[in-house]
Amino acid sequence: MSKIKRVVIVGGTHGNELTGIYLVKKFERSPHLIQRSSFESLTLIANPRAYAIGKRYVDTDLNRCFLRQDLENPNLSNYETQQAKIIYQTFGAQGSQQADFVIDLHTSTANMGLSIILGNENLLNIQLAAYLTSINPKVKVLYSTNKNQHRPHLDSICEFGCTLEVGAVAQNILNAALFQETEEIVHAILDYLEAYNQGNTPAVKDTLNVYHSIQTIDYPRNELGEIQAMIHPQLQFRDYQPLHPGEPIFLTFEGKEILYKGDSTVYPVFINEAAYYEKGIAMCITQLTHKNIT
Amino acid sequence: MSKIKRVVIVGGTHGNELTGIYLVKKFERSPHLIQRSSFESLTLIANPRAYAIGKRYVDTDLNRCFLRQDLENPNLSNYETQQAKIIYQTFGAQGSQQADFVIDLHTSTANMGLSIILGNENLLNIQLAAYLTSINPKVKVLYSTNKNQHRPHLDSICEFGCTLEVGAVAQNILNAALFQETEEIVHAILDYLEAYNQGNTPAVKDTLNVYHSIQTIDYPRNELGEIQAMIHPQLQFRDYQPLHPGEPIFLTFEGKEILYKGDSTVYPVFINEAAYYEKGIAMCITQLTHKNIT
Repeated sequence: MSKIKRVVIVGGTHGNELTGIYLVKKFERSPHLIQRSSFESLTLIANPRAYAIGKRYVDTDLNRCFLRQDLENPNLSNYETQQAKIIYQTFGAQGSQQADFVIDLHTSTANMGLSIILGNENLLNIQLAAYLTSINPKVKVLYSTNKNQHRPHLDSICEFGCTLEVGAVAQNILNAALFQETEEIVHAILDYLEAYNQGNTPAVKDTLNVYHSIQTIDYPRNELGEIQAMIHPQLQFRDYQPLHPGEPIFLTFEGKEILYKGDSTVYPVFINEAAYYEKGIAMCITQLTHKNIT
Repeated sequence: MSKIKRVVIVGGTHGNELTGIYLVKKFERSPHLIQRSSFESLTLIANPRAYAIGKRYVDTDLNRCFLRQDLENPNLSNYETQQAKIIYQTFGAQGSQQADFVIDLHTSTANMGLSIILGNENLLNIQLAAYLTSINPKVKVLYSTNKNQHRPHLDSICEFGCTLEVGAVAQNILNAALFQETEEIVHAILDYLEAYNQGNTPAVKDTLNVYHSIQTIDYPRNELGEIQAMIHPQLQFRDYQPLHPGEPIFLTFEGKEILYKGDSTVYPVFINEAAYYEKGIAMCITQLTHKNIT
């Protein structure tokens, strides 16, 4: 594999996820923090207008705007679709400042801990994720790959990179402990890429626990689309914990339990993410796999 | 004191605090739940447009629109100021459905537990608050009274009533456990008012712990108004816990601690409330007092 020449650290892809925004601002005040000898590090606040109004987005979710056909579609002209084109034309393939590696910083109201979300199975990405799990047991690795479809996420502008999803934290607030943990992960990634460029990556174990996203579950809704139940208290904040068939996942407003009807143990994530109510997602269901790294 | 004839239960004064909204919707589906023999119970979603867009408010914070001079000011005509006038003309003094008691349901990203916020020291309010603390140790009583000023809050439309502030919960999500605890408090209030009307209120202890709001503390900010520090990890989620002079309250993005400079032990609340960043409030400082009830 060729060396990494340019890294872009992105905050504020969602305007109400403050951790990435304030971390990028910090790096812009103190650029030496993200400098390494073998590559250039750039920063980006991806959705400044959404940040200005304290919302996830202005017109549409920026982190669903990066499908290649959408980036090439001149009829898509709202704020976020235009913003996505500018970002791709800057940092994407053949961009004016083409990046080799992207770190996209997010937070969640779900208890995602320190999640490394990978959009592809490139060896560098996987080995980096394995390294991060080895230095911090709170790190979990989540695959959002889909063999039959391209992904519309910002991190797809580069072959290498990841989305960092940190939580639980409410929208529009900063949690100092999670801010510091996020910053430590960014530094660990940059240090790893420096070692990679120098042919000196640290050894990691042969296998990696990977949570592979296989489906989503929506809230029970009535004919008007209104939700009729909440995440069950026994499931709340239990992201990445095993969920067995027959265990409760929802509680209706009238107090009736709704049980998980799957036929095997799964590992829900993004449980009760605020931004996913409108997307029809109460949780994402993952399977735990043990990936051979080499 | 005269009997309570009409109670209004309000949700959605802030459009992104879902617990009250979904609880009011439940009561509207099943009105028998809030019926009692000696008074009428009504419900209100106070800010439906803010709820529709998933925000605290459309134009301005509805829960700061109830000063009498503002309600009588014909020049105030944005959505929330108009909505406040309609609510006051309906449920306020001389209103078409004048209420004697208001329960305004809120949530907070701060760890407010089950807070009963009182805007005045009427004996019924205080005795009710004492009763609620006696049946649930999670209940805290917070005074937001101010002897020199009227209050702009919705609950000021009635002489009797309270604001219920529940947390920690992120904006735009439901937490099932807190939903159920909120509902239990509402039922306890209605049952207490029924007993009050029947001259049969339960006995409570002679003194009540009351947290009295005395000042607010803003985040450290630069000349542009941008915050320069976060709530210190040791203070996060420690609402109602004692804060001693010299203990850390903020942590700058560069990792420097900022200490509390007061000269006595206080009890911060609304620590890291998302909606208060724009109000210049990082926390509200309270003093703990022991109020004689009789």
